[in-house]
Amino acid sequence: MVQVLSLPRNETGIETAIGILKQRFGEQLQTGQAIREQHGHTTTWIENQPPDAVVFAQSTEDVADVVRVAAEHGVPIIPFGTGTSLEGHVNAPAGGISIDVSQMNKVLEVHAEDLDVVVQPGVTRKAVNEYLRDTGLFFPIDPGADASLGGMAATRASGTNAVRYGTMKDNVLALEAVLPNGEIIRTGGRAKKSSAGYDLTRLLIGSEGTLGIITELTLKLYGIPEAMSSARCTFPDVEAACNAVILTIQMGVPVARMELLDAESVRSLNEYSKLDLPVAPLLLLEFHGSEAGVAEQAATFGEIAEEVGGTGFEWTANAEERNRLWQARHDAYWAQKRLRPEAEAVATDVCVPISNLAEAVTRTQKKAAELDLLCLILGHVGDGNYHCTLLIDMESADECARGEEFVAWLSELAVELDGTISGEHGIGQGKMASLKKEHPSTLPLMRAIKSAIDPQDIMNPGKVFASET
Amino acid sequence: MVQVLSLPRNETGIETAIGILKQRFGEQLQTGQAIREQHGHTTTWIENQPPDAVVFAQSTEDVADVVRVAAEHGVPIIPFGTGTSLEGHVNAPAGGISIDVSQMNKVLEVHAEDLDVVVQPGVTRKAVNEYLRDTGLFFPIDPGADASLGGMAATRASGTNAVRYGTMKDNVLALEAVLPNGEIIRTGGRAKKSSAGYDLTRLLIGSEGTLGIITELTLKLYGIPEAMSSARCTFPDVEAACNAVILTIQMGVPVARMELLDAESVRSLNEYSKLDLPVAPLLLLEFHGSEAGVAEQAATFGEIAEEVGGTGFEWTANAEERNRLWQARHDAYWAQKRLRPEAEAVATDVCVPISNLAEAVTRTQKKAAELDLLCLILGHVGDGNYHCTLLIDMESADECARGEEFVAWLSELAVELDGTISGEHGIGQGKMASLKKEHPSTLPLMRAIKSAIDPQDIMNPGKVFASET
Repeated sequence: MVQVLSLPRNETGIETAIGILKQRFGEQLQTGQAIREQHGHTTTWIENQPPDAVVFAQSTEDVADVVRVAAEHGVPIIPFGTGTSLEGHVNAPAGGISIDVSQMNKVLEVHAEDLDVVVQPGVTRKAVNEYLRDTGLFFPIDPGADASLGGMAATRASGTNAVRYGTMKDNVLALEAVLPNGEIIRTGGRAKKSSAGYDLTRLLIGSEGTLGIITELTLKLYGIPEAMSSARCTFPDVEAACNAVILTIQMGVPVARMELLDAESVRSLNEYSKLDLPVAPLLLLEFHGSEAGVAEQAATFGEIAEEVGGTGFEWTANAEERNRLWQARHDAYWAQKRLRPEAEAVATDVCVPISNLAEAVTRTQKKAAELDLLCLILGHVGDGNYHCTLLIDMESADECARGEEFVAWLSELAVELDGTISGEHGIGQGKMASLKKEHPSTLPLMRAIKSAIDPQDIMNPGKVFASET
Repeated sequence: MVQVLSLPRNETGIETAIGILKQRFGEQLQTGQAIREQHGHTTTWIENQPPDAVVFAQSTEDVADVVRVAAEHGVPIIPFGTGTSLEGHVNAPAGGISIDVSQMNKVLEVHAEDLDVVVQPGVTRKAVNEYLRDTGLFFPIDPGADASLGGMAATRASGTNAVRYGTMKDNVLALEAVLPNGEIIRTGGRAKKSSAGYDLTRLLIGSEGTLGIITELTLKLYGIPEAMSSARCTFPDVEAACNAVILTIQMGVPVARMELLDAESVRSLNEYSKLDLPVAPLLLLEFHGSEAGVAEQAATFGEIAEEVGGTGFEWTANAEERNRLWQARHDAYWAQKRLRPEAEAVATDVCVPISNLAEAVTRTQKKAAELDLLCLILGHVGDGNYHCTLLIDMESADECARGEEFVAWLSELAVELDGTISGEHGIGQGKMASLKKEHPSTLPLMRAIKSAIDPQDIMNPGKVFASET
């Protein structure tokens, strides 16, 4: 377990606010220990800091009511979707009230002609696609977990197919949000583009609940491609794989997914999924388009891959074979965990310019070996984004310390290589100390904006900004 | 001429600041009337409000030095690129100092492997593409004018191929900017995506110089497509044309450009460019991809167009024929002007969800007829964005008044139809009064951010925000 900072508690305010809210919300407000702990951080190794109460909001008005009471009494508010974030975003280091929006799970409007959908924040990415299944449309962002769309926007999530469809930043047209004073605002609109005023939609996306609580989202949709194909290719080393990635992107091949698995990850998959892939860096790809298009894209990639030393190139447009290939990728987490069943898996991510990716991955492998850590690397390499999964024995204080050292080092490496300390997980509590290394000149500006919008610092306090800076 | 608000002048501060800057900058600072007027608004019908002095900045340090002196003496600063903006962005309603960045015109770094380029703000879109011509890469955003990239970012510009490549919002990875206190900040980074802190890059994009002056940009690049094809098709009415657009986008055809010309615009083109197109709504399209891909895309569009009543569908991958087709589109402005040579062309734009585009265009045509105005409509219809060119006799106060009535009405129409008062031109002075109709709930938040970052209101004052709200 990694200890994180606790902040001073406003005991009187918390008690008073919960009393008032209990009157207003009855059974919608819960204070039982199990529920409170579920609403603190439950993934990876950051300690659990439960809130004092959880309100299960049913509507924007519910959210606004909670926030107004909390604002009046100076009580922290922590928004909660599915709790699948990885950097301690839902912890309550100063106590306070968790607003759980998972029951705000309605798809409100589908505008098929305009390729957009309006949803409540508790709708998950799988749920929206299930809802859309008869329309021929889909929402592409897939961060792995079946996260809530409100949470995905708040953390600027992305995932495997961001290389083609972008991140949440690129796929939210409009937001409704409750500000720290309880006001309800609407940013953006349904037009596909706008030059009307400041881009408050993008300011809220990635703000991790520190500026307001997202209560409605208008999302871009895409037509389900006529055809999909998948391909795989093995490379002698990470550098050759990265070169294939660079050339493919430069050629303008509109790859939908492009995943790198390091040799160790491939080994774990072979064991877990009974495969016999060569134990060497592997690229898995997916292409979306017309039937002729996806065949052409796969063939182009195949030529590039062979040129840079790739072997065992295979591709298929057959749905069953495609699924089998990608199932292995989706099983990676479990496959990795099986390498050391008694350990906990700790996930972290960084993102660098693609030209630095080979160096970044190679140095990361070396550092993990130096620190005697079992580290598996998976990457959304079309974007230069890669994940390290550390398998850590939580009973060993020494191993935890080495893990922490590794994560801090990784952030420094990313900054050194012109990259970012997080491609898609966010800052939360886990990376606060590193943010000032990446953004020394803009951190004061971020704080000025935070103070202007949330002068009491009641919106998800103790996140994003390290207290000492 | 349309009169715009003048703001109180800080005479002493302006005089003192210019005195100090004259010492520092010598001939780089100019106060001649001709130069000052060139740096006020010179396009469309908004009156010219010249600054008191123009500093031709050569470096970020120059910009920071001017801003620091201006901040100390409470003097307005107005950033200037090429002066091609359309809503009075470069006017100086309270006087002050124009910072002309057109001589900061160096391409600083090309990272071909990472598909990015670092430029100074005075580099124009044509200049960057000229510079890149041997790399096989290009920067796609094309707002028509050969605008500076700094100005394009500041106004969140886009243009004909935004339907495929997005707007400036989507194509800037990082910015360097000088804040109103003279501090130099760096937002974003070269990684393709990041979840590290607030998205200050997107906050500056579209802020129209009211939060800071952009002094460097890192832009996304794309591989020049292997092949391009163009197509055209005539439709019985605007609605049929819009239906073709909707179906094409829903099919996921990755159209690069999709332009609508109304019957009147086609008539003007026939006259100007000696064409014999049927005088009816016309769609012009461009496709980017592989050779097989662009042929397939054009064919798919052709089928869709015929299905909804299109006639005269033609397509070509021949470069000469393509250029001829698009030349006509590029000549549209001059063709339109020729319909009434004594008049001035006044350009305005709105953007609506595509499903409302046919209604919006039809009602716009009707309103112009009611007001007895000559109005031509061109649209980047893949995005639901369309432009009205009014041909106005500036000598006629009555006609100017009708023109103003039309523009205000058009903004209301866009808001009524779930759209935005500007798809790509911005607010400037021209649409301040309309902004609160589109964003009543967020205008106070925009103001709070502005006040937090620029408490003295020296950065491009009198823009974006109407003073009465």
